[in-house]
Amino acid sequence: MTLIAQPQSMHFAEPLALRSGARLADYHLAYETYGTLNAERSNAVLVCHALNASHHVAGVYEGQERSEGWWDNMIGPGKPVDTDRFFVIGVNNLGSCFGSTGPMHTNPATGRPWGADFPVVTVEDWVDAQARLVSALGVDTLAAVMGGSLGGMQALSWTLQYPRRVRHAAVIASAPNLNAENIAFNEVARRAIVTDPDFHGGHFYGHGVLPRRGLRIARMIGHITYLSDDVMNAKFGRELRSAVGSDYRYSTQEVEFQIESYLRHQGDKFSEYFDANTYLLITRALDYFDPARLTGGNLTRALAAAAARFLIVSFSTDWRFSPARSREIVKALLENRREVSYAEIDAPHGHDAFLLDDPRYLSLVRAWFDRIASEPAA
Amino acid sequence: MTLIAQPQSMHFAEPLALRSGARLADYHLAYETYGTLNAERSNAVLVCHALNASHHVAGVYEGQERSEGWWDNMIGPGKPVDTDRFFVIGVNNLGSCFGSTGPMHTNPATGRPWGADFPVVTVEDWVDAQARLVSALGVDTLAAVMGGSLGGMQALSWTLQYPRRVRHAAVIASAPNLNAENIAFNEVARRAIVTDPDFHGGHFYGHGVLPRRGLRIARMIGHITYLSDDVMNAKFGRELRSAVGSDYRYSTQEVEFQIESYLRHQGDKFSEYFDANTYLLITRALDYFDPARLTGGNLTRALAAAAARFLIVSFSTDWRFSPARSREIVKALLENRREVSYAEIDAPHGHDAFLLDDPRYLSLVRAWFDRIASEPAA
Repeated sequence: MTLIAQPQSMHFAEPLALRSGARLADYHLAYETYGTLNAERSNAVLVCHALNASHHVAGVYEGQERSEGWWDNMIGPGKPVDTDRFFVIGVNNLGSCFGSTGPMHTNPATGRPWGADFPVVTVEDWVDAQARLVSALGVDTLAAVMGGSLGGMQALSWTLQYPRRVRHAAVIASAPNLNAENIAFNEVARRAIVTDPDFHGGHFYGHGVLPRRGLRIARMIGHITYLSDDVMNAKFGRELRSAVGSDYRYSTQEVEFQIESYLRHQGDKFSEYFDANTYLLITRALDYFDPARLTGGNLTRALAAAAARFLIVSFSTDWRFSPARSREIVKALLENRREVSYAEIDAPHGHDAFLLDDPRYLSLVRAWFDRIASEPAA
Repeated sequence: MTLIAQPQSMHFAEPLALRSGARLADYHLAYETYGTLNAERSNAVLVCHALNASHHVAGVYEGQERSEGWWDNMIGPGKPVDTDRFFVIGVNNLGSCFGSTGPMHTNPATGRPWGADFPVVTVEDWVDAQARLVSALGVDTLAAVMGGSLGGMQALSWTLQYPRRVRHAAVIASAPNLNAENIAFNEVARRAIVTDPDFHGGHFYGHGVLPRRGLRIARMIGHITYLSDDVMNAKFGRELRSAVGSDYRYSTQEVEFQIESYLRHQGDKFSEYFDANTYLLITRALDYFDPARLTGGNLTRALAAAAARFLIVSFSTDWRFSPARSREIVKALLENRREVSYAEIDAPHGHDAFLLDDPRYLSLVRAWFDRIASEPAA
């Protein structure tokens, strides 16, 4: 049975104070829900998105067969997160370019698009905004919050900011913070965007141009880091693009290897739909997330507030958010005597694995949600 | 005793046929030599450079105390490659921007700088050009050829192209070819340069501008891949640049973390002295190198021509040219019953380690050259 998704939007008139000290006077959040909230209002699951995803988590839009949500293999009727049993909420974050209030919308102070003046938003700010949406949907306590990568950071942050409002948290392919190398890759991507002459200091909307060159480079860098060395070698290796056989063309600018063609294509696609200011904001939210910053680097103390039961999942070839980083979270939670299930999935796909159809991974998540469904609501 | 280096240049009037099918009608090579060629002409060591280095391998220039050659810790009087015993030759490759014929020089066909029309040069072409220089210096057979990274590829190629002219080869932090991930990083760097509006299709010299934005991005990407995750975390971690303490500034464009400041500085410096067309040419030479391409991917057959004795060195945290890649070379040589010494140095510094002062590494190279010095010339 095909799940039909229906994008929605909610306006929040109450100002939102941000960690930066700025405040948003009001804002919209784009969201979708799947399944039905039960009478006890105890079966809600919030799904948090990563860098370039949105509130469109599952299902397809009416009449658009190929518009599957970004986690459609995970969420839906009969799927690991079964929408016949759970009421699933997908939400687009502030600062995004997919519907929620962001840099492309009007800055009430100027009457023009926010552009680069959109305030810096953090994982904690996003969670605050999400919590209001969850309340507005009639849910006090979430059965679970879940996310991968940056989405996992939000899930973790929920358990610290709203410990009594979340019973379970699934933190997948994530980390307690970015390391120097992660920040470095984000910074190169941001510099590519910011130094693109078409960026115009982040106010390109008024110039009729888009910093596509910068976005392409940013996406190419990102894409390399999402994949593992192994999967790139298996998929592309040193294969030439030329159909002519094994002869090199001897060119510095033309595509010679398949991997080049693939990356250029990914960059081109991305630059058509993604907003440059959003890219800056979201990578910065990644950089800034660091719950242990306020406990002198002690993650155990930082996670002491958490009361949820956890599922932590990592993937063996993920070098962007390596298993070692997930184990730091596990260790800190165990030192706080929290209930944690941890799985390190042996998968060749690198960071991208959290979005893919790995049977062991999907059945593990299924089993975890089955247990939640069978628990009496607290 | 300070070694004083003296840059020199040699003109070659005989045309050079390149692997691409193009030919250079004539060319110059910049080079330096250190030490004295013995009467038997048996003590010459050729040093091949990697991406951004040059013929200035060792010593300093007269009156310029801080002008040390890029491998000055390795090569000089009393050093592992002892110029009191060896006659060492440093050579700048064709297509470079440090003196040898390259894109900034005049294209005889047009009377203007070559720019992007400089022919694509390969590792094999470089070795052919180097071989002529070695002959012109009166050396028939090299005691050794050595290089790290791309320089190691040249050393390896010497043993295949001129097996009777090289008795020993040191191939350090190198690989038998680039894998898909390596090519991918090169490609992103090239795209950053080529799509910089100041690149002008590679003919920016006539426009009074330089594609600095692209070069900066290229260098930042390169720099991340030269370092290990460990050393970046040890050196920078999540340290903030701000002297104000642990408070974030909450900015997407200002420097927030030390690692960002470091990378921007590296990018800025590089963009001041490196030529954009050279960057394209040298990364392409890296991409194209693949001696096993002509033997159906069989490296053992590809290396059958080698007659030299080998030293292969890799570094444990080098993820650009990992130890596994060096072991492929070792295996192929052993299958050909060649004499190989292999060392995998446990060093935290990533790919950069081959340029650094690791005592075990330096004494290993010293011992290897000591043995060469004590051998009777063949």
